[in-house]
Amino acid sequence: MFGAGWSARGRWLLPLSRRLLQPLQPPGGAGGGRCLPSREDATEASSSSLADLGLQPRQDKYGGLSLHLSQLRSPESLDEATFRLWLQDSVKQWKAEGHIAVWLHVPILQSRFIAVAAEQGFDFHHAESNSAALTLWLAGGHNRLPVYATHQLGVAGAVLDIHTGKVLVIQERNKTTNAWKFPGGLSEPGEDIGNTAVREVFEETGIKSEFKALLSIRQQHRHPGAFGKSDLYIICRLEPSSFSINFCQQECLRCEWMDLTELAKTKEATPITSNVAKLLLYGYREGFDKIDITMREFPAVYTGLFYKLYHRQLPENYRNTINLP
Amino acid sequence: MFGAGWSARGRWLLPLSRRLLQPLQPPGGAGGGRCLPSREDATEASSSSLADLGLQPRQDKYGGLSLHLSQLRSPESLDEATFRLWLQDSVKQWKAEGHIAVWLHVPILQSRFIAVAAEQGFDFHHAESNSAALTLWLAGGHNRLPVYATHQLGVAGAVLDIHTGKVLVIQERNKTTNAWKFPGGLSEPGEDIGNTAVREVFEETGIKSEFKALLSIRQQHRHPGAFGKSDLYIICRLEPSSFSINFCQQECLRCEWMDLTELAKTKEATPITSNVAKLLLYGYREGFDKIDITMREFPAVYTGLFYKLYHRQLPENYRNTINLP
Repeated sequence: MFGAGWSARGRWLLPLSRRLLQPLQPPGGAGGGRCLPSREDATEASSSSLADLGLQPRQDKYGGLSLHLSQLRSPESLDEATFRLWLQDSVKQWKAEGHIAVWLHVPILQSRFIAVAAEQGFDFHHAESNSAALTLWLAGGHNRLPVYATHQLGVAGAVLDIHTGKVLVIQERNKTTNAWKFPGGLSEPGEDIGNTAVREVFEETGIKSEFKALLSIRQQHRHPGAFGKSDLYIICRLEPSSFSINFCQQECLRCEWMDLTELAKTKEATPITSNVAKLLLYGYREGFDKIDITMREFPAVYTGLFYKLYHRQLPENYRNTINLP
Repeated sequence: MFGAGWSARGRWLLPLSRRLLQPLQPPGGAGGGRCLPSREDATEASSSSLADLGLQPRQDKYGGLSLHLSQLRSPESLDEATFRLWLQDSVKQWKAEGHIAVWLHVPILQSRFIAVAAEQGFDFHHAESNSAALTLWLAGGHNRLPVYATHQLGVAGAVLDIHTGKVLVIQERNKTTNAWKFPGGLSEPGEDIGNTAVREVFEETGIKSEFKALLSIRQQHRHPGAFGKSDLYIICRLEPSSFSINFCQQECLRCEWMDLTELAKTKEATPITSNVAKLLLYGYREGFDKIDITMREFPAVYTGLFYKLYHRQLPENYRNTINLP
């Protein structure tokens, strides 16, 4: 399935049998699988107790195992010492069996098991809301597990009134220097680029607008406002459908419709605003087809979802296979 | 400072005094701040012990407080019960003082305190490697804290040999259908878009190439390959500097130089590959200036970093303020 399996993920695949999402026999239980000799201090009870409590390691198609501690039927009856012994033995066995990685999913209220797993070499892959995912890389070489989300996405709107040649700009509160910029903000989870721009413009300035095209994409790393992750910042071209400013006093110091030529020339704008103002001026004077990165919508391969694809305008005669010139 | 403070972050700002990163007096300690009456079961010792152990809540400029449990000088001497009482009292006091949120940073080996914090309403904001960050929203209304990274970034390279009109394509292993696509993969932390494309193309196909421009950007949400987060997928135009294929057998089933017109016409390509092949064909026949989203590099406002800005080509006479037509 396209898009669902990146090569960074594909790369940790091993030619294991495809017992996809089948429960494994936990160590100490009856049945198949190579068994390591029991440690003296690891009682049979400690090893089998996790299966008794409902914990069923499951194998994924990439050669990894997943454990969900949310499966534990009565987690309060499992103490850290028992879990430690079980995990020590299990990790040895999983490694011997050729599994390449273990994913351990821990509900926040069972977090006492996280430190125990960390003693065995697990670390955080990600955590959100009321659950954490830890991983342990078992195969040789460097950890090839796919990384978690690496980017935050900020989107701003360059709202140009084509009848007056004025563009909507703000100055943020609580900045050391007051520079003009386009209104914008962080994309919310699941929100499309254009929707973020329209929402942020409205929240900050009270202006209603419509998405027309992308204008620019910026990438920055180790971003101080992104918890050290990377930042993608996209500026969209929007057309206003209302004109009376009612700006957010908490966020903005000033907000106005400024002549686009003035914005392109002033030194009192952030560098990226200044650059995109020049681009927008070029489009305003010589046609937006010179600057737009346009949007098309397609059904995704996995059911029920659509996605938006942004690229330069493609002439009609190039769009269909049959008509290709 | 531009870029470091998004509006989604700015929006949770309260007009508190700007004691930026100044230690606060912890509850129970001597000195200023309103103090709530002690609970009977919260001993003076339990309240003051965390300051004694080195824990110093610090205030950020947005009205939030940060606690770093890594500051604890001897964390083994702090038990969960003591931490629970201290946190209960502290949360009440912080709320009464008008703080809007608390950030609790927990080293993985101190994870026993996470469940205690969760009992008080904290949940995971993010976690990575050996540290977790939990948050508690204290102000009224919905939680307005900035979200963590929301997107993974995949990048593919459309490597076109302009002398032959052939483009480099692969079929991935372990797919239910064998469709042609451009080689690519997930961006590594801190890696620029073009570098991801060049690296992935080389790793998958053995072909060396040079970044020329962005061609397309796709956004998908709740992506099955992204742990439920969003996915941005960018296809770059690359020019080859080597031509002899030596493809990765683990990742690829097939790899070849395919006639671009054939790729644009075949049904045996993923939909996005097919679309971008048509775009690339248009550029190949009528000029890459018709399809390229070009790259420029600028110094970032915060010291020592550079960023890349991608947009449509801007004519020279529009680039400088003085020469603006």
